[in-house]
Amino acid sequence: MRLSVAPDRNRCPPNIRVCAKSSRGARLEYDLELDRVRGQVESLGARRVLLQLPDGLKGLRWCVVDELEGCGVEVIVDGGHAWGVCDLALERARLLGADALIHYGHLDVKRPLKLGGVSVVMAPARYRWESPEAALERLADALAQFRVIALSSSVQHSDDLLLVARFLRERGHTVYIGRSPLPHFRVGQVVGCDVAAASSVSAHVDAHVCVSGGIFHAVGVAIATGKPTIALDPYRGVVERERVEGFVRRLLARKLRDLSEAAEARAFAVIVSAKPGQRRLDLALRAVSELRRAGRRAELVVLDEVTRDELLNLSGVDALVNTACPRLGLDDLELFEGLTVVNIGELKYIISDRLEEYDLRSALAWRMNPGFVSELASGGALRRPAGARR
Amino acid sequence: MRLSVAPDRNRCPPNIRVCAKSSRGARLEYDLELDRVRGQVESLGARRVLLQLPDGLKGLRWCVVDELEGCGVEVIVDGGHAWGVCDLALERARLLGADALIHYGHLDVKRPLKLGGVSVVMAPARYRWESPEAALERLADALAQFRVIALSSSVQHSDDLLLVARFLRERGHTVYIGRSPLPHFRVGQVVGCDVAAASSVSAHVDAHVCVSGGIFHAVGVAIATGKPTIALDPYRGVVERERVEGFVRRLLARKLRDLSEAAEARAFAVIVSAKPGQRRLDLALRAVSELRRAGRRAELVVLDEVTRDELLNLSGVDALVNTACPRLGLDDLELFEGLTVVNIGELKYIISDRLEEYDLRSALAWRMNPGFVSELASGGALRRPAGARR
Repeated sequence: MRLSVAPDRNRCPPNIRVCAKSSRGARLEYDLELDRVRGQVESLGARRVLLQLPDGLKGLRWCVVDELEGCGVEVIVDGGHAWGVCDLALERARLLGADALIHYGHLDVKRPLKLGGVSVVMAPARYRWESPEAALERLADALAQFRVIALSSSVQHSDDLLLVARFLRERGHTVYIGRSPLPHFRVGQVVGCDVAAASSVSAHVDAHVCVSGGIFHAVGVAIATGKPTIALDPYRGVVERERVEGFVRRLLARKLRDLSEAAEARAFAVIVSAKPGQRRLDLALRAVSELRRAGRRAELVVLDEVTRDELLNLSGVDALVNTACPRLGLDDLELFEGLTVVNIGELKYIISDRLEEYDLRSALAWRMNPGFVSELASGGALRRPAGARR
Repeated sequence: MRLSVAPDRNRCPPNIRVCAKSSRGARLEYDLELDRVRGQVESLGARRVLLQLPDGLKGLRWCVVDELEGCGVEVIVDGGHAWGVCDLALERARLLGADALIHYGHLDVKRPLKLGGVSVVMAPARYRWESPEAALERLADALAQFRVIALSSSVQHSDDLLLVARFLRERGHTVYIGRSPLPHFRVGQVVGCDVAAASSVSAHVDAHVCVSGGIFHAVGVAIATGKPTIALDPYRGVVERERVEGFVRRLLARKLRDLSEAAEARAFAVIVSAKPGQRRLDLALRAVSELRRAGRRAELVVLDEVTRDELLNLSGVDALVNTACPRLGLDDLELFEGLTVVNIGELKYIISDRLEEYDLRSALAWRMNPGFVSELASGGALRRPAGARR
């Protein structure tokens, strides 16, 4: 049962940088900031912690486990997916009596937060980009026709934004880097449901560059801004524009098909998520009441992880309205093959039956649970445990 | 997107019995005891409830939703699986501000319980067995060589145990019906992880009859007792012995293969569940410490729903040790194809490397979270809200 993305334990040094092998066999280096994490765990006096990493980084967990267990801290690994900061395993931490939750990969916060009564240690897992030169040359070629550029990135690569900006400025481009209003987001940082760092400066630029693995974040930027968007992938050293724009084109076609099916639907299940940042009961209740006012049957359904398996059990339903993660109704449409899914922002087209006015941006038109966001902001600003090191 | 098990809404009467169509098109009738459920919800003064049904009964939810919304109660449907009373959606109820959780299909409790701070209304969803005659004749044939019989059933069919017992006694059999020590279990009631109703009387009988849909519960009885076990399925009116015993034979072969693979494994992930009745952190910690003492690498991993998808992300692991639902490591082995899974009760064979002593019963050798069970007992015995009707 040995799986592909295994940590290269022989190369795991005692302190900071750790390595993993990608599924293509390349060596990946991340800064897990073990000193920072251990220091925060010690400052909290935690004896048992829950460790949460996104799937792509789960192979690195042994290094964190070794470091903390070496200090006498009991570590439980969260085996669930971790799709974003919206998806903190606060409940599992509480249920297992963990004194702290360590969450990697989505936010960079220098001191522990208190969220939902749980102490949370956040570390970004920065990627170490060893040789950006060739990729930057490819980027320069792809940007030849554009003068003013906006840069954004996922948190793993936010340190590299200055490097990319400097390079582009030397080549004569004007470069903007925006910022999300979400608390603790770094300059230029985007996530699946929030690309405000890109859209806030989009009016001033000719094109966007999004530095991130794959095209997921770039697709979000392309949808929200409608401008030419280039994905710069540090892992593979590649630059992709056609793939991003092709994905958005195919997505639009699929969305229009789903929306016209939903326009005919009689019975709807409105999905509300149990995840802390995705828990938009207000939106879900509004969707139920709008649907009922429009003469449709509507029920409210809660799910934690939204899986095809669970949705298939909702018999007697013609279409689903998603209020959880907006990307479920965008990137995950293949997961829902044979099911009709619309995002809450798209419901107005169904109720008004004016599909000809459809704008793909409406699919991304909501953000995280506002209660969670304000707790995130105040939890970060107000709580600083005595003895916290940084 | 219309799915197969749809409620037959035209046949849904205003009060108690409701119907569903099975995937084979047959009409199924269940007693949802809407009067009881509505009465308990009213006695609690609940304005918002979370409604949880096992997958096979989810098609009936509209009737409950209509009944309660007709009384001004807001209903949220739990879209997750509901594998047993171990799997109460207490956290989702709490997170959504529900005043009560309504749980169908696993326990028959006459008044609301208080579990994990949440008020819980339990109803069994009894099946109405319209014409048992032909199935009982088939049962008599299958039991020709056995004189003393033990009866057990899932809660849907517990009312029919007396009917079956009377029939068998008239045919000259001696009949025993045992009882689980688990609180609130009806006479003869078995669930996936607890077949004590059958095993408590097994020493006195020649064969077991388990009344339940499919062969799931009968397989549990066969494993735990090692005696001839016949599944009597009221939905299909069939009697099956060879299928139950064939399943157990194939299971044993698969288990021995997994166990010998696990005996060679170097790195283990020990799975602990977040579900209230399955949360056996004590067992999981013991497994980790035994494995480490035996020179193996072991990590503790928490999951809510155990899915193949999430297990595949646990890179660097050779084998999994399950402390969640014992049936995961029995009936769900196909789900884990390509993964090596052992149940906590089987770990001793791996550590001692004495596979020749293997006994399949060890796979079923643990029960629900004792803290949850004692809360279930005291929550039922002590809490009786003012104004509760029954």
